[in-house]
Amino acid sequence: MSYDAALDTALKRLRDEGRYRTFIDVERARGNFPNAVWTKEDGSTQDVTIWCGNDYLGMGQHPVVLAAMHEAIDATGAGSGGTRNISGTTVYHKRLEAELADLHQKEAALLFTSAYIANDATLSTLPKLFPGLVILSDSLNHASMIEGIRRNGGAKRVFKHNDLDDLRVQLQSLPANTPKLIAFESVYSMDGDFGPIEAICDLADEYGALTYIDEVHAVGMYGPRGAGVAERDGLMDRIDIINGTLAKSYGVMGGYIAASAKMCDAIRSYAPGFIFTTSLPPAVAAGAAASVAHLKTDQALRDLHQQCAATLKLRLKGLGLPLIDHGSHIVPVHVGDPVKCKMISDRLLEDHGIYVQPINFPTVPRGTERLRFTPSPVHGPDMVDALIDAMDDLWSRCALNRAEKAG
Amino acid sequence: MSYDAALDTALKRLRDEGRYRTFIDVERARGNFPNAVWTKEDGSTQDVTIWCGNDYLGMGQHPVVLAAMHEAIDATGAGSGGTRNISGTTVYHKRLEAELADLHQKEAALLFTSAYIANDATLSTLPKLFPGLVILSDSLNHASMIEGIRRNGGAKRVFKHNDLDDLRVQLQSLPANTPKLIAFESVYSMDGDFGPIEAICDLADEYGALTYIDEVHAVGMYGPRGAGVAERDGLMDRIDIINGTLAKSYGVMGGYIAASAKMCDAIRSYAPGFIFTTSLPPAVAAGAAASVAHLKTDQALRDLHQQCAATLKLRLKGLGLPLIDHGSHIVPVHVGDPVKCKMISDRLLEDHGIYVQPINFPTVPRGTERLRFTPSPVHGPDMVDALIDAMDDLWSRCALNRAEKAG
Repeated sequence: MSYDAALDTALKRLRDEGRYRTFIDVERARGNFPNAVWTKEDGSTQDVTIWCGNDYLGMGQHPVVLAAMHEAIDATGAGSGGTRNISGTTVYHKRLEAELADLHQKEAALLFTSAYIANDATLSTLPKLFPGLVILSDSLNHASMIEGIRRNGGAKRVFKHNDLDDLRVQLQSLPANTPKLIAFESVYSMDGDFGPIEAICDLADEYGALTYIDEVHAVGMYGPRGAGVAERDGLMDRIDIINGTLAKSYGVMGGYIAASAKMCDAIRSYAPGFIFTTSLPPAVAAGAAASVAHLKTDQALRDLHQQCAATLKLRLKGLGLPLIDHGSHIVPVHVGDPVKCKMISDRLLEDHGIYVQPINFPTVPRGTERLRFTPSPVHGPDMVDALIDAMDDLWSRCALNRAEKAG
Repeated sequence: MSYDAALDTALKRLRDEGRYRTFIDVERARGNFPNAVWTKEDGSTQDVTIWCGNDYLGMGQHPVVLAAMHEAIDATGAGSGGTRNISGTTVYHKRLEAELADLHQKEAALLFTSAYIANDATLSTLPKLFPGLVILSDSLNHASMIEGIRRNGGAKRVFKHNDLDDLRVQLQSLPANTPKLIAFESVYSMDGDFGPIEAICDLADEYGALTYIDEVHAVGMYGPRGAGVAERDGLMDRIDIINGTLAKSYGVMGGYIAASAKMCDAIRSYAPGFIFTTSLPPAVAAGAAASVAHLKTDQALRDLHQQCAATLKLRLKGLGLPLIDHGSHIVPVHVGDPVKCKMISDRLLEDHGIYVQPINFPTVPRGTERLRFTPSPVHGPDMVDALIDAMDDLWSRCALNRAEKAG
């Protein structure tokens, strides 16, 4: 057995398919987002504007967040020193959980080191709590949900993306006394489309299913206190488990679920991915709590964010580019060719100092390769101008279609 | 289907078995470790000494670590803003990976948000890289390794803890051309015993297997530069993949693997748990890098740590308590009864301000319940005196055996 040859094969497969990823080394300067410095392979540097980050509101440089982190480091040091059960629970963790339970108007919240782990650990633990559980999963759910659903070989049914008829058929096919859970997202990050929350909750009621929603691309940004799309639509109380992140619009790190006290207690008690890992550093919990608290009141920032997205979309449409527009803050431009997608991304970065990562298979289906822009309140009009000019130029040079694909 | 009743059942099971965990809320004061303030359920507080943390060397309050974190927050803000592939790779992450590769004298290292995820993601991805891989796993491996090995239904063989004969029998039973990996730990955290690294490497050579070692309870603390037991024993180059944590002796957060450049590249490219999650905050990476760099040279701290452990063990033996002593820095005292174990822990905390979490089933087998002390360079002689006096008193009051169990 040649292990080395096997690694060569695995890596060659990626290169052959044009899927080998090279990480771009970018460092944002605090107070100066989304400007950043790109350090190239040869060590030289170039100023760039980040157009593909998930710090959607620029909270990663907000003074209240940074002050909370500095204070916690000064007060209590660097790491937590243990798992939540063995010396790793602090007032910072408890405060953040209380802040999140309040945000979602649930009895409790449970912190994880990431939303990836929150999804993976929760969804893989639910079958232990509800023996025989069948999870009905939207076909475009995030990798972390898929991993969690698959993990313990639990029963699952994948329903077509946002397809209520298919979901109904699948619910109907299950015995009434079978425990069921419908797992879906509020905003799907690659197309920026919304899940039909109310209709799914109606179906859940009709067929006696639990509901699990991933709001990682919505918390902080939707709803009058930033609790997400379910809050905006007045549906939070109809969702059994809400999953969110502290690493995107809240600008820090970590993930969570919010649910009933019993549900959180059971996940807390049974999920290895929660139990057997060091808890978040107090400074991270403190920064996240400050960010969540701040965004409960800063509706102006949310409004500005939506306005920035609307402006960018309008201008890209003005060029006739094939925009995928479902009314969310995510702005994907369809390229439909992995080589051209990578080429435009490379040219934007190298010639224009505009950093947007190409999104290729397997993150999206082949033939739907795209550039995914994430406008934010810290992207000024001059940055938008520069992006529009560059895209106009490159689109022509790459001989890509306009207009007929737009819509 | 009553979901609520199912949750009640799941929680009642834990309470009935005496396994329901109540988290103790403790906050350490920077510069004053291991002293901490315990906030009780009723909101009142009590000063305590933490005797069960995993910040083994007190690095969580070391000025070089805290300064690095403060500087990174000032320079670049709170979170990284993205996955490693989409705007979340910074010079802080790259520096830390270089520091870790150098530590273990490997070509590369790969950062994860925790060592739990590093184990889980790596071990569940290896079967994708080496089709047909059989993982031979020590029966006392950590939950994160077990989860990773199980995840994709990969083939596994569990060998008896540290039993080379059993491992050999299992290796012999596999076809020569079957890819194999032996997964084990250098220090098992519950007994504090060492894995037979050299003998396992010999068997791996003999049977053409890869080797995977978890050094989370050893990095920082063993070896002339703190690279772990494999470094101490001159065996690092015989291990294919080394797993370590930045959250225990390094005092911050995060985990990693160190391996060949190809191996890291393949895991980086194929592991969902690496790809689809926001990278560590730059400040966390900066703090961890400063800690790793510092401990490469601070042998005095390592010596002091071992001396503290030796002193505590000597004094507990002096009382005739049944110590589990394998010569490592971990000091487990065998109680052998879950109720008495919890009772001693409660009395230590409430009456003596000594915080040591009881370790019960399923973390350890039933009948081997224990108190697990983690002495460190920041535990002074007066703290040791107080612990010894309290244990002497409580052991008598709980009518537990001495001497005959000691050894």
